[in-house]
Amino acid sequence: MKALWLEDQTLSLRDVPRPAKPGEALIRVRLSGICGTDLELARGYYPYTGIPGHEFVGEVVEAPDKAWIGQRVVGEINAVCGGCEECQNGRPTHCEKRTVLGIVERDGAHAEYLSLPVANLHCVPDSVPDEAAVFTEPLAAALEIQQQVHVQPTDRVLLIGAGRLGQLIAQTLALIGCDLRVAARHPHQKQLLESRKIRLITEDEIQPRRWDVVVEATGSSSGFDLARRAVRPRGVLVLKSTYRGEMTVNWSPFVVDEITIVGSRCGPFAPALRLLERGEVGPTLLIAKRYPLGKAVKAMGEAQKPGMLKILLEP
Amino acid sequence: MKALWLEDQTLSLRDVPRPAKPGEALIRVRLSGICGTDLELARGYYPYTGIPGHEFVGEVVEAPDKAWIGQRVVGEINAVCGGCEECQNGRPTHCEKRTVLGIVERDGAHAEYLSLPVANLHCVPDSVPDEAAVFTEPLAAALEIQQQVHVQPTDRVLLIGAGRLGQLIAQTLALIGCDLRVAARHPHQKQLLESRKIRLITEDEIQPRRWDVVVEATGSSSGFDLARRAVRPRGVLVLKSTYRGEMTVNWSPFVVDEITIVGSRCGPFAPALRLLERGEVGPTLLIAKRYPLGKAVKAMGEAQKPGMLKILLEP
Repeated sequence: MKALWLEDQTLSLRDVPRPAKPGEALIRVRLSGICGTDLELARGYYPYTGIPGHEFVGEVVEAPDKAWIGQRVVGEINAVCGGCEECQNGRPTHCEKRTVLGIVERDGAHAEYLSLPVANLHCVPDSVPDEAAVFTEPLAAALEIQQQVHVQPTDRVLLIGAGRLGQLIAQTLALIGCDLRVAARHPHQKQLLESRKIRLITEDEIQPRRWDVVVEATGSSSGFDLARRAVRPRGVLVLKSTYRGEMTVNWSPFVVDEITIVGSRCGPFAPALRLLERGEVGPTLLIAKRYPLGKAVKAMGEAQKPGMLKILLEP
Repeated sequence: MKALWLEDQTLSLRDVPRPAKPGEALIRVRLSGICGTDLELARGYYPYTGIPGHEFVGEVVEAPDKAWIGQRVVGEINAVCGGCEECQNGRPTHCEKRTVLGIVERDGAHAEYLSLPVANLHCVPDSVPDEAAVFTEPLAAALEIQQQVHVQPTDRVLLIGAGRLGQLIAQTLALIGCDLRVAARHPHQKQLLESRKIRLITEDEIQPRRWDVVVEATGSSSGFDLARRAVRPRGVLVLKSTYRGEMTVNWSPFVVDEITIVGSRCGPFAPALRLLERGEVGPTLLIAKRYPLGKAVKAMGEAQKPGMLKILLEP
């Protein structure tokens, strides 16, 4: 089958065997989405050799239980052991032996086919088109914030960063009714937010020590500094991006102001699908371009441009 | 009156006027305790000129409401405005205009008399001796952990650091029934913990990524590193000490493992007094030495010795 291949920080289009994992489902990819993590893998921030990509919607073509065949599905990206302490304690996304679709020791979604355990699959409601369903994974990651932090309707919430993930975070936070402001850099990011009646704020307007919840979604040290200054005493700072290398931090203000910092990663698929079905979020607005899988290398280059929103690949 | 005086990182014994703040209570100090923060002020980590000391038990000698006169009291250390956003939102210890007894723009407890608003005072139950009551403030700081974090009886809890504050943290956490282990450095710290049937752990025995809640009470970067490695995915790391200067941290593991970091400072006095009254904690074990106020400079020098526990001053 055709697939995007990453090796030694080099991307290429390859013809590779279809994945064949005993006991798993084989899924024909209908659409996949390029995520910031794909770009980071390609830059070598994490070691990975194989097919990247973890956002997808597809159709089951083979499965141990024949009832799955023909179903249109999305899939949780962590394939877990079920037996380790994390799995047994209800934290399967932290499984000690996990492989992760297109990220850790498991070929991913930028290909004609992928393989995942049936336990990872969720059927997509008929009313949700592929172009929306392909956003289930990042939408779930956005909802992980509310899974971890009780964001209250009366809270002042500041989101820093309005890229691919930031837009989805903004849309989900706005559903709470909280007093949400978003610091966005690029004009088209701002337009998208305004089209959803989500309020913007400039960096100069961000009052220090005032915000109940601050979500940092830039992954930059300048974004982190901005977030740190904005959060109020006993407020919560959510880190929604990984950070390259190390950052130097003065910890004493965090202790004196009793700040809570919460690292946040993968989230729950079922509520993401419910929001998509009800049309409460509008992820398709984020689609910047759509390429055939055959042009995946070019598409990855395109995705690296500053402020670029979602690029989809179609096998 | 006689008082310990700090100016330009130099301690001296001085004769100064009794504090006289309109609308506040005047308290004759019966005992005061030397805290790590006093030592940090003396080292110049924070700018402060005046009388240090914020742990005390005393007797009210003057007050706007005469009913207070003669009462044996302890006092919350943050004197607040009542009108700012923090005060109005139930976070008075974070008052934007606060003065702090012996720490921020308010003369402290290492003196014959101190002044505090009546709203800060708590009567000490008759059955609690001065030697125990003087620990109310640090005991409240220890309880702040449980005020901020839901530590469950089934949790594996690791405490790093068993100094003055660490001992009280250990005693309060042990009351939860959680699986508590304490990493202590000094033999007498270990003996104290063992005398309370609190279990020790060596640094080598600390399993990585295993502990539900880790409390860092050393204020050292090595303690922070140990804590960071020990906490499990989605676990909580409580920072109970301030840190000198800056620390360089790789944030990505906090995001990937979805760690929560909680800064923790001053705590609630009422539950601390309830525990003292019920005899559930044994703070007097921590008393290393007792000096007359006249020897306060010597006592402060003594308190700086590594592993030294609580030194009390008696006016």
